[in-house]
This record gives sequence, structure tokens and C-alpha cells, in this order.
Amino acid sequence: MLLEAIDHRSGQAYCYAYDERTVHIRLRTKKDDVDAVHALHGDKYDWERTALETRLYKTGSDQLFDYWQGELVPPHYRLRYAFKLTSGEEVVWLTEKGFGTEKSQDPLTFFDYPFLWPQEVLKPPAWVKEAVFYQIFPDRFANGDPANDPPGVRPWSDSDPGSYDFYGGDLQGVYDRIDYLTSLGVNAIYFTPLFEAATNHKYDTADYKKVDPGFGDTALLKKLVAAFHERGIRVILDAVFNHSGEGFAPFRDVREKGQESPYRDWFHIKEYPLRTEPRPSYHCFAFESHMPKLNTANPEVRNYLLDVAEYWVRECDIDGWRLDVANEVDHEFWREFRKKLKALKPDFYILGEIWHDAMPWLQGDQFDAVMNYPATDAILDYFAKGEIDARELGNRINRLLASYPQQVNEAAFNILGSHDTPRLLTRIPDEAKAKLAVMLQFTLPGTPCIYYGDEIGMQGGSDPDCRKPMQWDAERQNHGLLAFYRMLIELRRTRRALSEGTFRFVYAEKDQLIVLRKNAEEELYICVNNSSREASCHVFEPESAYSDADAQFGTPPDLERGNRIRPEAEVILGQGSFVRTENGLSAALPPFGWLVASVPLWRFDTGQGDML
Amino acid sequence: MLLEAIDHRSGQAYCYAYDERTVHIRLRTKKDDVDAVHALHGDKYDWERTALETRLYKTGSDQLFDYWQGELVPPHYRLRYAFKLTSGEEVVWLTEKGFGTEKSQDPLTFFDYPFLWPQEVLKPPAWVKEAVFYQIFPDRFANGDPANDPPGVRPWSDSDPGSYDFYGGDLQGVYDRIDYLTSLGVNAIYFTPLFEAATNHKYDTADYKKVDPGFGDTALLKKLVAAFHERGIRVILDAVFNHSGEGFAPFRDVREKGQESPYRDWFHIKEYPLRTEPRPSYHCFAFESHMPKLNTANPEVRNYLLDVAEYWVRECDIDGWRLDVANEVDHEFWREFRKKLKALKPDFYILGEIWHDAMPWLQGDQFDAVMNYPATDAILDYFAKGEIDARELGNRINRLLASYPQQVNEAAFNILGSHDTPRLLTRIPDEAKAKLAVMLQFTLPGTPCIYYGDEIGMQGGSDPDCRKPMQWDAERQNHGLLAFYRMLIELRRTRRALSEGTFRFVYAEKDQLIVLRKNAEEELYICVNNSSREASCHVFEPESAYSDADAQFGTPPDLERGNRIRPEAEVILGQGSFVRTENGLSAALPPFGWLVASVPLWRFDTGQGDML
Repeated sequence: MLLEAIDHRSGQAYCYAYDERTVHIRLRTKKDDVDAVHALHGDKYDWERTALETRLYKTGSDQLFDYWQGELVPPHYRLRYAFKLTSGEEVVWLTEKGFGTEKSQDPLTFFDYPFLWPQEVLKPPAWVKEAVFYQIFPDRFANGDPANDPPGVRPWSDSDPGSYDFYGGDLQGVYDRIDYLTSLGVNAIYFTPLFEAATNHKYDTADYKKVDPGFGDTALLKKLVAAFHERGIRVILDAVFNHSGEGFAPFRDVREKGQESPYRDWFHIKEYPLRTEPRPSYHCFAFESHMPKLNTANPEVRNYLLDVAEYWVRECDIDGWRLDVANEVDHEFWREFRKKLKALKPDFYILGEIWHDAMPWLQGDQFDAVMNYPATDAILDYFAKGEIDARELGNRINRLLASYPQQVNEAAFNILGSHDTPRLLTRIPDEAKAKLAVMLQFTLPGTPCIYYGDEIGMQGGSDPDCRKPMQWDAERQNHGLLAFYRMLIELRRTRRALSEGTFRFVYAEKDQLIVLRKNAEEELYICVNNSSREASCHVFEPESAYSDADAQFGTPPDLERGNRIRPEAEVILGQGSFVRTENGLSAALPPFGWLVASVPLWRFDTGQGDML
Repeated sequence: MLLEAIDHRSGQAYCYAYDERTVHIRLRTKKDDVDAVHALHGDKYDWERTALETRLYKTGSDQLFDYWQGELVPPHYRLRYAFKLTSGEEVVWLTEKGFGTEKSQDPLTFFDYPFLWPQEVLKPPAWVKEAVFYQIFPDRFANGDPANDPPGVRPWSDSDPGSYDFYGGDLQGVYDRIDYLTSLGVNAIYFTPLFEAATNHKYDTADYKKVDPGFGDTALLKKLVAAFHERGIRVILDAVFNHSGEGFAPFRDVREKGQESPYRDWFHIKEYPLRTEPRPSYHCFAFESHMPKLNTANPEVRNYLLDVAEYWVRECDIDGWRLDVANEVDHEFWREFRKKLKALKPDFYILGEIWHDAMPWLQGDQFDAVMNYPATDAILDYFAKGEIDARELGNRINRLLASYPQQVNEAAFNILGSHDTPRLLTRIPDEAKAKLAVMLQFTLPGTPCIYYGDEIGMQGGSDPDCRKPMQWDAERQNHGLLAFYRMLIELRRTRRALSEGTFRFVYAEKDQLIVLRKNAEEELYICVNNSSREASCHVFEPESAYSDADAQFGTPPDLERGNRIRPEAEVILGQGSFVRTENGLSAALPPFGWLVASVPLWRFDTGQGDML
């Protein structure tokens, strides 16, 4: 065994509480180097009576590593544990002290999970994994009230937005299009900022408690959220707390009064009087002088912003905040934020904008999840840039899933683009190929989010080009693509295996991908052929469906009796063929084709033990 | 290069702020596999103008890995970084996306350190690394006031304490012995619990706000702390907040009134009425029914205990709390604890009792440091049990140092025993050998703590045998050992290289250890021969003293000019010889001998650039 490859450290994504009774432990080994991993575990104060051995299962692999996971239920909420790794005849034990060839007789040398406190469990709201989001950039979605248009708005039909243009989109416009959103099938909306600000994107807040007059007012926002709620659609807003706009009254006061301003410590001022050239004399978002960085470590600022965060929940009953530039704000701020918001609304969704590894914010005390840019990158590197092959795509996704606790993955915000990136169809101009990327987006654990207009085939390069006004002219909408999105949204909302099931790449080679999502009801196979040729692939995997990884869903009684007759697979969507045998599976797909196949599973009636 | 061995993840001990301007980044590679590691780093919003390459240096190695570290000062408090690893002709780049053979052109793929917030920097009090602690178990140190003795105390001369015996030690006894402690030279005291409780160890608190009547009262404690402070000696107490005693009034109330008690939610009750057999019907420390676990997640309990923690600082001006069973209390409690205590006294020391990996508590928001049991284990596994050799001892210490941020190591609480373990001389009966273990204890970064009586040669097995009354009979004290301790304490307090210098094993083989501690003033070599033979060792290390690792202290101008004449080494303590040449060093030691040698360093006058 390659000891250098084996990794485990208590905490973070290697040992964490998944729910109020269950602790997940994970281990990393060199790829294809280890046959089996077992955890020896028990209560640290009652070792002799509680010690058990539990087999870990492989959740996935990447180019270098295999990732293993086990679920343990410690009887007294405490754990002491060690790992036994087997490779052929070779056995290696791993404890906190290091590697050994013999089982340690001293559990004091083992790893330790000291106590499972229920309130420390990171529990994202259950609705998130069942949600399909739709992102709205308000100035560009629909203009429902021309009376509130900013001066000089451009005609809606102009499809060449400049950085400083306004189009007059507003909340009334969204309200008027609720039927469209309902018929699309999405059940959650993410609005980029709505509050008063000078720019069209509103990331430079002037008044945190006022809906931008160009968009409407608080009463309208309240009415809009209520209307969404009536249709079972949740709403999250964009919290821009890293920085304000230069129009924010406290900042104006500092600019005017300098050191005499009572708001002096609301920002990070390096020199008075304030200047903006050649570089701002105060910390900003990046070096944007119109976005002065807020000093969230100052209790006055903290209290002010926390009040803002609560205000919109109280006032309009919103369901979550997406946190702009979340990793540049201090951790303590977000800890207070979580405490207050979850107290106000227990199933509130706290979503951080972090483009990089976000583990420090995902330990239970801050966010529920982050925008899943690493998955976006992997999908686009494969489908858009062709920089990586199918295997490496699988590697990247598997590595990502192994890097966070399972519940974080289950609440990840999966996007293929946003107001900050070129649009999907601009990155992947081949529509058939773009659809395959969307298939994968809808297949991942977490919640998919559609950037407004992507579903009807809008194109656009980097900001501002990706912020064109929504195309409402039915003649110019791509109805085929729209139907495809509607179908996937419905699939996602009706097949619970996509939201609650385990996730696994069954195959990821030669431009073919087969993903298995599986819950107690079915195996759902999502098959994709990212090539211009017909393709078929055969996976020899006699135990794939009933591997350790799926043990939580039980083994059908027929299989236990050695009878391997199984239900047949049914292609429920897409084109091609899919066959599931006792020895594996075969899929055949047309060029750039895809299909979704289901294998219904035996179920037990928990009361009787009878099959349903 | 063995890619599987290479490890880095932003956060924890791999990337952290060391002070308000400096970020440490670290990388792990396979041992002896990589010649050089460089970091490419810059400001994420101004990459072109700020990108720099910095060479990392090797801080140490263990059996499998080399550990590298670099110090970066990000101009705008933000960092984006990647690593370049070189091995012969081979170059590998590591970014957050993974490994590559070419430099990535897209800094977005790099690792990210989003923003250095000064208040998030973990800054243990500066005094800790310069401290030498002395641990007092109050019932057994000295009886200064027989009037407050509990009934039935045993005679001080009885050296066979039972688990339930009292000896009458008290605060007056400590007060009376201040001169002893002053002459020993220690400058910090750690008291095990002082508050009212039924047992002799007082880990079962009945009244958190009352000094145990057998020990004295608040006024006496106040007087005692003040007397210590007058002598420059700091005092930390033991906070037992994981559980109370069964005599704690709220617990008595629950036992009496059951579910009707207003204190019902102060504990973790599983069943009413409370029972203790066969297992307690409430969570306890371990399964000790007289130590009911406190529900620190309950705001009432939290506020009560935080008030207690502050009370003793306000009342008696104590300098720190040692936190009993710290890892079984919830994180949020400790976060509040830190905020309150540091606000009250900024250089307050917060020391957790954690026997296992403690990284989750050492991220800046909870503890300053932990009791360094992993170092204790490594030292005893070598010197006491002979289970590991010198090389493995070095490996274990190096791995430990690499697992925590540098400032955590600098505040670690280094012990060779305590009231919870057998005594040093019982574990290492050979006094010459025991001294070598103490040498290493005093050589490690952090603060050494002497368990009362170890310094005069007391012996004792596991609890209760390790809790014998202090031997005050001069005839029965080991004066040689005492002199040895005094000497080491003085060394530690006068040679700042031991508290502020870098730490490195220059040699750890064949029962010889050479440690280098180095600051701007000197190289201090601590050499140890843990064998019954005379031993000499030669280290070929032409650049050892001016390696990258020591680059922070500058290179003497003569060396820069190629002139390698260097100051000679002087043996300042111990026996044997030590020679430092331009090509390395040689040490010769008698059986079980040790020595400390100093090589004075050139220094620059920062104003003039002249040598001192």
C-alpha cells in the first residue's frame, strides 16, 4: 500500500456529523491500491462493550485516489476509531499515531470524535435538494411598469447592453411573468440585488432597506414573494455585505467629514481625505472605488447589516440569502448571521458566493452551501473547452464531492453560468452538446440553477453581453430547448433519486458518461454520449447496483437467496437503448445523444417485511 | 515526483495568518522527493503588478514526508497562490485545480486566501512562549492552615494516597511556599481546580463561585495571585465546564424535582426520575454519575458559566484558564468564551485539555493552544518505553509541528506528566535518562510545565499514586535533580532562542539527538546521548546555519562575500564537546550525557547596516 497516499484527519470532510445520530468517516487511499477499508470504532469510555467493525464503501475515485466513506451511529454520541486497510494479504492499521501492521491495543491512540452536539450538525434546509432555481437579473428580465423606468432606458429589443445601460426591468415585470416561471416548473428564484443603488446590477448598495425605485417598492416585493409562495416557489435575494456603494449614507458622510465622521470606522480607511486615484485610499471590493469595503468587524456595522438581513425576512418572508463575495467578509460576521437568520426561519438557505475551496465556511457555523463553481469549471472544461476528457471530468467531480461533507454537496448550487460569466450557449454553441452539459447539471447532487434566458437559447459573452434583456418574442425563442429544460425540471421534481439518492459515475470514458443516482425506489441511470458518433458502452459490474455503497437501501430478498433475476431497465427519457443484466449494463446512444433509464427496486414494507 | 504524497488545502495548518501582516503557506511532499518548492503569489485583483515568486523552506521531515513553509506579506491583505515543485529536471505545478506540468495562465485556478482580518489572527499571549509553568494539585502541595483541613486528613508523611483521601493542602500552603517557587525560577502556575467540590481533586464542582473551604477563600486566592504577580509569576486555573459535580445546586434540584425543575435543561437527561444504575440516566463525563454533563448549548448555562469564567478574572486577576475535557463542550460555547475573556484581559491564555488532534479548536476563534499530549507520548515512547528510536521520535515531533499553525506550537503546553498520568521518574526510573527527556521538553517550542514534585524526584504510578503529598523534607529531596531543573529553567528564561527561535532536528539517529533553536542572536544546539556508550556524531551540513529555514535572520556579510570564517561554538552547559565548522558539526557526549552549545550570530544594526 502506498502509505503516502492515505489521508485522514478528524474534522472537516473526513469526520463530521451528518445528522443528529450519524457520523460520517472518510478515508483516502491511492487509486486501486486497497481492496477494503474497515473502521474499528466504539465509545471511548466503554470500549470493550461497544467496539464494532464497519466496512467503508468507495464513493468514487479520481486520477490519484479512491475515496471511502462509512456511516456510524455512536451509541453515546462519542466515537473513537481506527482504520484497517486490506490489500491482498497486506493489512495496515491507521490510528492518530500513524501506520502500523498490527491492531493497536490502546484505543487512546485512535482517532477521536468527542461529542455529537445536535445544534452543531450542518443541516441545510431539506427543500434545497429538491429545488430547481431560476436566476433573475431584475433590470433585464421584464419591464412591467414603464412609469418607474430610469431616465434614458434602452429599448427592450436592443441586444447590445453596455456596462452602464438600463433597460427598465422591474418587479412588476417578474410578477407579470409568474405564469411563465410556473409553467417552466422551477420552484425557487434567485434575484441578484434589488436594493437602491446607482448601477444597473445594484451591487453598489446605497440604501439597504429600500427596494430600488426603478424596480418597485417593499409592498410590491412582498406581494411578489407571496405570489411565488402561493405557487410553491421559494425566493432568495442577494446580500451584498462585503462592500456598500459610494452612495451609501455612512460612506458619503466619511467622504464629506473625513476623520470627524462618526462612520469613520464603518470602512477601512488608509488616508484622509479620501481619494480614488491612482488607487483608492480605502479598501474596496477589488480596487473599485465605488464599492468601499465595509468593516464588518465593527459591531455597529455588524448590527446594522444583521438587522438588514433580518428585516427582509420579516418584511417579505424571503427564503434565503445568497452572500456576495462571501469569503472576504469575516467569519464571525457570518456566524452571527447564521444564528440570527436560522432563529428567525429554521429552513432558511444560506448560500455563499465562493469560487474557491470553501471548507472553512462549511463547518456548520456559517453557510449551508456555496455556488458550485468548481463543478461548473469541470463541466465546461469538458463540454465547452474540450480541455479534459470524460475520465478527468469524472475525476474532478469525484474529488469535489469528496472534499465536502455529504450534506454540503446535497445543497450545492449548481450553475453553468450566471451574470458573471458568458452564457452557456456562447460557451457551447453546439446545442446538442450544451444539452448534455445541462443533463449533467441536473444530475449532480445539489440544486440546479438556470440563468434567465438560457432555457430559451439566449446567447451572450462576458459581462455586459451576458446581461441582454430577456427574449419574450416567441418567434425568437428556442422552443426545442425550452421543452428540454421543462422535461428535465419535471424529471428532477418527480424522480426523488435525483435529489435524495446516492451519486456515482458508473462509466466516464471515451466521451461516454453514465451516472447512477439511486434511492430506495429506483436506480436512475443518466447516459450521455458527447461524440459525433453512435456509441455503445458495456460496463462489467456484476454487483454495481447492490454494492456496499448502496447497502443503506438494502438488498432485495431474491438476491440474498442467490436468485439474480432482476427487474428490467426502462428508458424513460431520451433515445437509445439501455440494458441491465446481472453482470453489468450496456448503453447505446446516437451521436450527442442521451437517455435516462430506471430500474425499479424491490422495497420492503417496514412494518411487515413484505415486498411492495 | 510522487503526486499522491503532495498535500495542500487552504486553511487550517496549510494556509493561515501568522500575524496581522504575514500569511504562512505550507506544503507537504514525499520525503526526499523534491529539491525545491516555490510559491507564485500575488493580489487576486492586481495579479500582473503584484505577482512574485517566493522560495519555501523545509521545516522538517518524518518517515514519509517533507514539510515546507513560506512567509508571505500580501500587499492588499489578499492572496492568490500556486506552487512550483522542482525535482531534478522535473517541474510540477500545483493549483487548486490539481497538478500540471506547465504554469497556469489563469490565476483563477490558483489557491485563494481571501482577506486577512486582523481580529481573526490567532495570537496567543506573548508571555506564554517565555513561561515555565509549575502545576499544583492543591490538596497535595502544602498545608498552610490546618484549621481548614477536611475531617480525617491523612498525615502528610503518608505516601500511599487513596482515591478518596484528603491531605489538607491549601492556598495558605502555596502562599507559604512562594519563595520556593521563586527560587525554582518558574514564572507561571497552573492550579488544578480550586472550587468547592466533594472530591479531593475537585473536578466535580458544587459551587463555581466559591473557593473550596478546605483550600481557603476568595480573599486568600486574591492575595495569593497578587503575591505571585508581584514576583512576575502568572496564574492559570482549571475550568471544569464540561460537567458539574452532583453537589451542584441546579443538579440537586433536578434530582429532587425531576421534570418540574427549572434546571431540567441544564443537563442532558434521558429519563426521569434520575437513576445511576446500571448506567446513569443522564449524560455524564464518561459514565461517572457524580459528574453530570452540562448542557452548554443552553443559553442559561452558557451565560452562567461565562459569568463564572469572567468572575475569577475580575475578582482575582487570573491570567488564564485551562479547560477541562475541552473537546466535549460545544464550539459555540468556546467562541463566546474567547470573545468575553480576551475582551476582559487581552493577554489571557486559553488552554484546552485535548489529548487528540485539536485543529478544530485552534483556528483563531477558540483556544490559544492545547496540552501537548502527542509530544508527551512521543517523548515517553522513546525515553520511557523504548518503543521507538530517535529517528521516529524526530518524525513524530516534526509531524506534530507541521500539523498546527506556528503560533499554536509556540504556545503549546508541554508536559511529561500530570495528575492524570504516572510521574516522570516512575515512567523513566533511570534519572540520567529522565533528565534527557526533560532536556527535550525544555527545548520544544511552547511552554514547559513541571508537575509539582517531579523536580525533587518524587515517584508515583497512575492516579492516585501520582498525587502523593509534596516532599518538603530536604533530606528526601533529590538536590541534584532540583539543581538540574533550576538550571534548565534559567536557561529557558535567559536564552531567547528557546522561546522565540526556529526549531529543527539537526540529527536524530542512533540514540543521539541534536536540536537547533535559533534566533537573531545565536544558534543554540541541544545535544543528547540516550545510550550507555560514549557517542559522537558528525553532521555534514555545510549550510545548516544559514539555510533557507533561517533566512529570516539574514546572512552575515562575510558569508555573502564567500568568506566562511565563523564564530566558534561554546559549550555553555553540560558535558562533552561540540565543534561547528563550515562543513557541519560534531558532537561528542558521555553515556547519557547532554550539552547545550551556542554559536553567536552576526547581527545587523537595523539603522546603519553595521555589524554589532
